[in-house]
Amino acid sequence: MNATPETTAPKAAGKLLYAQSGGVTAVINATAAAVIETCRKHRITAYAARNGILGALREDLIDTTRETPAAIRALKHTPGGAFGSCRVKLKSLQDDRARYERLIEVFRAHDIRWFLYNGGNDSADTALKLSKLGKAMDYGIRCIGVPKTVDNDLVVTDCCPGFGSVAKYTAVSLRECALDVLSMMDTSTKVFVMEVMGRHAGWIAASAGLAGERKDDAPHVILFPELVFEEEKFLARVRETVDRVGCCVVAASEGIKYADGKFVADAHAGTDAFGHTQLGGVAPALAGMVRDKLKLKTHWAMPDYLQRSARHIASKADLEQALAVGRAAVELALAGGNAVMPVITRTSDSPYRWKIETAKLDQIANREKKLPRSFITKDGFGITAAARKYLSPLIRGEAPPPYGKNGLPEYVTLKNAAVRKKLPAFEM
Amino acid sequence: MNATPETTAPKAAGKLLYAQSGGVTAVINATAAAVIETCRKHRITAYAARNGILGALREDLIDTTRETPAAIRALKHTPGGAFGSCRVKLKSLQDDRARYERLIEVFRAHDIRWFLYNGGNDSADTALKLSKLGKAMDYGIRCIGVPKTVDNDLVVTDCCPGFGSVAKYTAVSLRECALDVLSMMDTSTKVFVMEVMGRHAGWIAASAGLAGERKDDAPHVILFPELVFEEEKFLARVRETVDRVGCCVVAASEGIKYADGKFVADAHAGTDAFGHTQLGGVAPALAGMVRDKLKLKTHWAMPDYLQRSARHIASKADLEQALAVGRAAVELALAGGNAVMPVITRTSDSPYRWKIETAKLDQIANREKKLPRSFITKDGFGITAAARKYLSPLIRGEAPPPYGKNGLPEYVTLKNAAVRKKLPAFEM
Repeated sequence: MNATPETTAPKAAGKLLYAQSGGVTAVINATAAAVIETCRKHRITAYAARNGILGALREDLIDTTRETPAAIRALKHTPGGAFGSCRVKLKSLQDDRARYERLIEVFRAHDIRWFLYNGGNDSADTALKLSKLGKAMDYGIRCIGVPKTVDNDLVVTDCCPGFGSVAKYTAVSLRECALDVLSMMDTSTKVFVMEVMGRHAGWIAASAGLAGERKDDAPHVILFPELVFEEEKFLARVRETVDRVGCCVVAASEGIKYADGKFVADAHAGTDAFGHTQLGGVAPALAGMVRDKLKLKTHWAMPDYLQRSARHIASKADLEQALAVGRAAVELALAGGNAVMPVITRTSDSPYRWKIETAKLDQIANREKKLPRSFITKDGFGITAAARKYLSPLIRGEAPPPYGKNGLPEYVTLKNAAVRKKLPAFEM
Repeated sequence: MNATPETTAPKAAGKLLYAQSGGVTAVINATAAAVIETCRKHRITAYAARNGILGALREDLIDTTRETPAAIRALKHTPGGAFGSCRVKLKSLQDDRARYERLIEVFRAHDIRWFLYNGGNDSADTALKLSKLGKAMDYGIRCIGVPKTVDNDLVVTDCCPGFGSVAKYTAVSLRECALDVLSMMDTSTKVFVMEVMGRHAGWIAASAGLAGERKDDAPHVILFPELVFEEEKFLARVRETVDRVGCCVVAASEGIKYADGKFVADAHAGTDAFGHTQLGGVAPALAGMVRDKLKLKTHWAMPDYLQRSARHIASKADLEQALAVGRAAVELALAGGNAVMPVITRTSDSPYRWKIETAKLDQIANREKKLPRSFITKDGFGITAAARKYLSPLIRGEAPPPYGKNGLPEYVTLKNAAVRKKLPAFEM
C-alpha cells in the first residue's frame, strides 16, 4: 500500500466523506481502512462522519488525514465502528427534505464531492436519495453504497462483509459449547439453547449448522425466522433428540415467530417479582419451555454483541471482502460512479472464487434477502447441502489480530480530530 | 514426547485410572493428554472413567491405550471433557460407604493402583476419602487430585488450570463488545451488561477488568459476588458513567446477591404471559432495572458455556499449566504420592514464573478461595493494581487450535473403547 501521508502530497480538488451506518461488525473498520488507504493513494482527502449520518447532519466531521498510516492499518484488525455509527433512517425526500438539504449544504461547505455510506438496505436507500437530491440541487455529489451487515440480507451481492465473521464465530462457538454439553449430559444439562442474531433473515442461524458435519452432530435443531415456530413440533424434536443422542443443542434465531406473527421473545416476556418488565429473549423462552414441558435440565446462551464484535475469530474470507469493497467503492467514486454499490459476485464454489462488480443502488435499497427454503431441510430444523455449499467458503481462513504481551488484542483508537465547522448549527 | 504405543511395550504391574469431574474447561483435555502421554512414557496402562466418577462406579472404563498418539496430542487443543464428566458429589464415608467400597472393588478387579481425579474442591474431597478407604480396606491405591476449575477457587494453588482461558475469553470479549457499544451509543445502546460465571467467587468477573487499561475504559462497572449488591448504588454509578462517558459497560457475576442473601438472578425470576417460570439471569435482571429506573436503552449478553469451552481463545499460560499438572500428577502417583495434588506456585510476577509443588488434599478439599477485598477497588466496582498483577500473567499468550480448510477448529473425538466388565452391575 502506498500509504503516503496526505500532508506531503498535493491535494486534489474535492473531498471524500465516509460514514458508517447501522449495527457495526468485526470488519467494518477494515472497509474504512481500505477506503482511506485508497484515498491516500489517489491523494484525495478523506473525511469521516462522526456517528454516521448524524455527523454529516451536525457538520461533525473527522479529518482522517490526521491519522498515521499505522493507525489506519490497525483499523483492519479492530472491531466496532472507529468513527461511530448510528441507527437513524432518513425518511422520504419529501418528509425529510430539510435534512437532505442540510446534508447537501454540509457537503458544499466542505467541498465534499464523494459520499461513501457503509451500511445495509437503509443506508443504500439514503445514499440513493442523496444522489438524486444532489442532481436536483445542482450540486455534484457522487454517492456510493458500501455493503456491510452481519445479517447478510442485502440483495444482488452474493454475501455481505461482516456476515462471514459472525458466521464463523457462531459455528466455532457452537462446536465448542456442544463439546461441553456432550461431556456433561449424563448428570447435567440435557438441552442447550444458543440464541443468534438475525431478526428477519436466518443466515446467522444457518451458519450454526456448519458446526456439525456428521449425523447427530450439534446443532441438532436450528430455528429459522423464515419458518413459523411450532412449539409442539419443536418440543417433540427436542425430546426425540435427547432420547437418541443424550442431549440436544439448539441454535435459535432471535426473530422466530408464532403463527400469529408475534415474536417468541416478546410472547414470553413477563414481569418479575418486583413487577418490572422482564426483557425477552428467545433462548430463555425456549429453555423455559423445555424445562416446564419436558422436565429436562437446560442451559442457554445469548452472545448478543459479542458475536458481531468478535474480531479475534474473524473469517479471513470476510476480511478480504471487506477490504475489497472499500477499495472498489473509492475507485468507483473517482471514476464517476453514482448511486451504485460495489457487490460481491461468486464465480466458483470450489475452489471459492469471487470478484467485485457494480450494482445500482435502486436494485438494492430497502430490499431484503431471506434464506431460501432450499437451504433449510424439509423438517425445518437443519441446513441442506446447498446451504453448506454457499456458507462454507464464507468462514474460511483465520485472520487473528495482533496480541500484546498482556494477552489482549491490540485494537486501535483513532484520534478522530474534528474538522472546523463552517456552518451554523442545524436544528434536528 | 516418547509416546510409544502401549501395545509394543511390556506392561507394568498395575493400572492408572483418570477421571474428569465437574464443569469442564477449555484445557481439561490438555491435562488428560499429559496424563496419558506420561503414562505411556512410563509404560503404565491408563484407563479413563466414562463420565467421571460415575464410570468408576458403573465399571464403565475406557481403555486409552486404544487411542493413537495423534489423537492424544489433539486432546491438547480440544475443549470439553473427552471422557465425559459429571456433577456427582459423594457424601461422607459413612453415608456413602457402599459407593466408596464399590470404587475400591472396581479398582481391585482392574488392578488399578493409581487414581487421578481431575476437578475442584469436591473432587479433592472424594480423592482424599478414597485414599483413606483404600488404607482401611487394605487395598493399595494412590489417589491424586489434579486441579481444574474455571472458578479459580481452589486454595493453596496460585491459580487453577481452566481459569486463565475463561479469563482471557472474558477480557477479550469484553474489550470487543465495548468497542461495539462505543460506536453506537449516540443513538443505540447506552448500557450493556455481560454476565459471567462464578457463583461464589469473583475471579472471572475480575478478569473482565483486564479489558480496560485507562480511566473510563470499559468495563465501567464490575459486580462481584463477594460484595452485597446494592441496587441504588449500582444505578447511581451507571447513571453517572453514562453522563460522563456516554455509555456504561457492566460485567456482572452470576452470583451477586442482595443483602438478604438472595441471588439477584433468582429475585428477578418471574412468570411469562403463558404462566411459565422465567429463567433467571443476572444480565437481563440488571438490564431490566436500568431500563425501568434510568430509562436508558440496554443490551445484555450471557455467554454461559461459550466462555468455558472457548478453546479457540485459550490462554497459553493456562494451557501450559494444564499440561504441567497432568504430567506432575502421574509422576507424583508413580513416586508413591497419596492424598496429594500438584499445585501451581508463583515465584515471580514479572517476569511471570511458576513451578509445580505438591500439596496435601486435606488442605484443599472443600475449601474455597474467594477474591480478596484488596483486589476490589474501594467503591466496589473495579479491580485494583494488585488484582491486575495477579491476573494479567494468567491470560498471556495465544495457543490457537489447528483449523481445517473449512474454517473450523479441528477438535478430536476419541474412540473411547470400553474395557470389558468383570463385575456384576452395581445398584446406585
